[in-house]
Amino acid sequence: MIHNKNTVIKDILNGNRRAIAKAITLIESTHPELFYEGQELLESLLPHTGNAIRIGITGSPGVGKSTFIEAIGLFLIQQGYRVAVLAVDPSSKISGGSIMGDKTRMNLLAQDPNAFVRPSPSSGKLGGVGSKTRETILICEAAGYDVIMVETVGVGQSETIVSSMVDFLMLLLLPNAGDELQGIKKGVLELADLVVVNKSDGNQELLAKISEGEYRKAMQLLRPSRNSWKAQILRCSSLKKIGMEKIWETVLEFCEALQKSGEWQKQRSNQTGKWLWSMVEEGLLNKFRKHNNIHKQIQKIEKEVKYGKTLPTIAARKLIDSFEII
Amino acid sequence: MIHNKNTVIKDILNGNRRAIAKAITLIESTHPELFYEGQELLESLLPHTGNAIRIGITGSPGVGKSTFIEAIGLFLIQQGYRVAVLAVDPSSKISGGSIMGDKTRMNLLAQDPNAFVRPSPSSGKLGGVGSKTRETILICEAAGYDVIMVETVGVGQSETIVSSMVDFLMLLLLPNAGDELQGIKKGVLELADLVVVNKSDGNQELLAKISEGEYRKAMQLLRPSRNSWKAQILRCSSLKKIGMEKIWETVLEFCEALQKSGEWQKQRSNQTGKWLWSMVEEGLLNKFRKHNNIHKQIQKIEKEVKYGKTLPTIAARKLIDSFEII
Repeated sequence: MIHNKNTVIKDILNGNRRAIAKAITLIESTHPELFYEGQELLESLLPHTGNAIRIGITGSPGVGKSTFIEAIGLFLIQQGYRVAVLAVDPSSKISGGSIMGDKTRMNLLAQDPNAFVRPSPSSGKLGGVGSKTRETILICEAAGYDVIMVETVGVGQSETIVSSMVDFLMLLLLPNAGDELQGIKKGVLELADLVVVNKSDGNQELLAKISEGEYRKAMQLLRPSRNSWKAQILRCSSLKKIGMEKIWETVLEFCEALQKSGEWQKQRSNQTGKWLWSMVEEGLLNKFRKHNNIHKQIQKIEKEVKYGKTLPTIAARKLIDSFEII
Repeated sequence: MIHNKNTVIKDILNGNRRAIAKAITLIESTHPELFYEGQELLESLLPHTGNAIRIGITGSPGVGKSTFIEAIGLFLIQQGYRVAVLAVDPSSKISGGSIMGDKTRMNLLAQDPNAFVRPSPSSGKLGGVGSKTRETILICEAAGYDVIMVETVGVGQSETIVSSMVDFLMLLLLPNAGDELQGIKKGVLELADLVVVNKSDGNQELLAKISEGEYRKAMQLLRPSRNSWKAQILRCSSLKKIGMEKIWETVLEFCEALQKSGEWQKQRSNQTGKWLWSMVEEGLLNKFRKHNNIHKQIQKIEKEVKYGKTLPTIAARKLIDSFEII
């Protein structure tokens, strides 16, 4: 329970990390009253949001996402930026555990006063986690972070969800072109605004160069997903901190191009509109499933449909007709 | 209006093409009474459905889909199969017109007594067209067609919709590997169970062979989307009718593999379940938008959300709370 809302707001706007963490905990609460309080707090912060660059970072496990984020995060802080790192962790949905949450990660970055590293959430379904991440982005923006990195493992639907809440999506790959075992997820390559071949150092550098060429070819087969930007490919070494400058330049070029064309604002406004409708849909379906008339018959009807005994359209109409509104 | 439902059912089960066309018209009707009649008719046919192989065929305009479908359709009829061809045409959504509907297509196939070629629907939004196609598939199955091909142009969401209603998705490509202008849509490559390089004849044959290799490389970068099948790539010439046998063999191998692993039935049952829920969602959102309390405030609230004045979660809750149920 927040005893003094105005103080908390002031603390967040001043970038107090304890206040930020507290606000996020409130937002993530499943207790209805606390949750509602969090929402109210967030709405007060709303006028102070929207000024950061939101970057999604994805890649298979083992590609070195944490090391990369730490390297580019420290580079950005050197340049005078304040950096926040959040994680969308889809693992909880599959295993009940967390891939990323338990490790102590990005120690150097986490200790820097100009950084805020939020450990990955450890529970809740992906959609839920996703929507909390949206809210956490807003809190970090109100707290004055300039760059917000949202990290995710390339599993399931997580990239699509992350790409629906960031301005720019970066895909990290390993230097082993053509190795199908790397397991790039369906459609991820197409979502990326920038592909970075990581671990381009030592005896892997040549392989990284070859990979860059191979990935470039594969990318050329795909139609650009934006009007004012064509996906780029770069190499870097997070370990030796090589390539960070070029990567950041590319991000800034992207921002300039999209802001100039108007696509930037359009994307943000679309994302917010979709967020509203996905919340409406979620709420509606919830209300629907819990409704007594529906609850009584849904399992039976679903089975009938799956076994080919009832037509889905007829079943749907029957269900909706029994969902009575005043 | 159907005056004698039982006669119509008998005619459809006997494969009478006029009766089939009539049933589809009924299904596509926007008149509530006729539409309902169509649904009832379809439910009577339900026990006779499910026995065909449902194949989706996609590719950019100009890749030769019609010629290919005619070639493989005639080949299949020679083998003793009965073949139905439907089209999901996304163009109506964008331009109001129809890409595929106006041309006289597949003349030879359309005239064959063992084929049923349904011209593409010319109106309605994509989702609507999609759901009617699902129902048309069922009618064709009841009428005894063994192979149902659903054709679509690689634009927008159409492949995702088509892949949600077929067993097997085939992507046709032209022999010009690496040419980014070919404009393969995001994610289509990953949905395909079989990629076919068409127009592999004359002086294009060598280019087709090179393309096959290039596409194979790009495909190897993608993780297989099924447990019991890995996407294949083949070449063909629809003009010279070369390669049809091998393509059909591959389709049958696919069916065997998925039926053996249980993935076949699982996919069908999932598809039907999703169809039900998409109908429920559509119906719910319709009811929601039309509801007086919602209708009055939705535009204002949507604007407030997009301009960052209200939080989407709070707006959604407000809307859902004012949607009162008995």
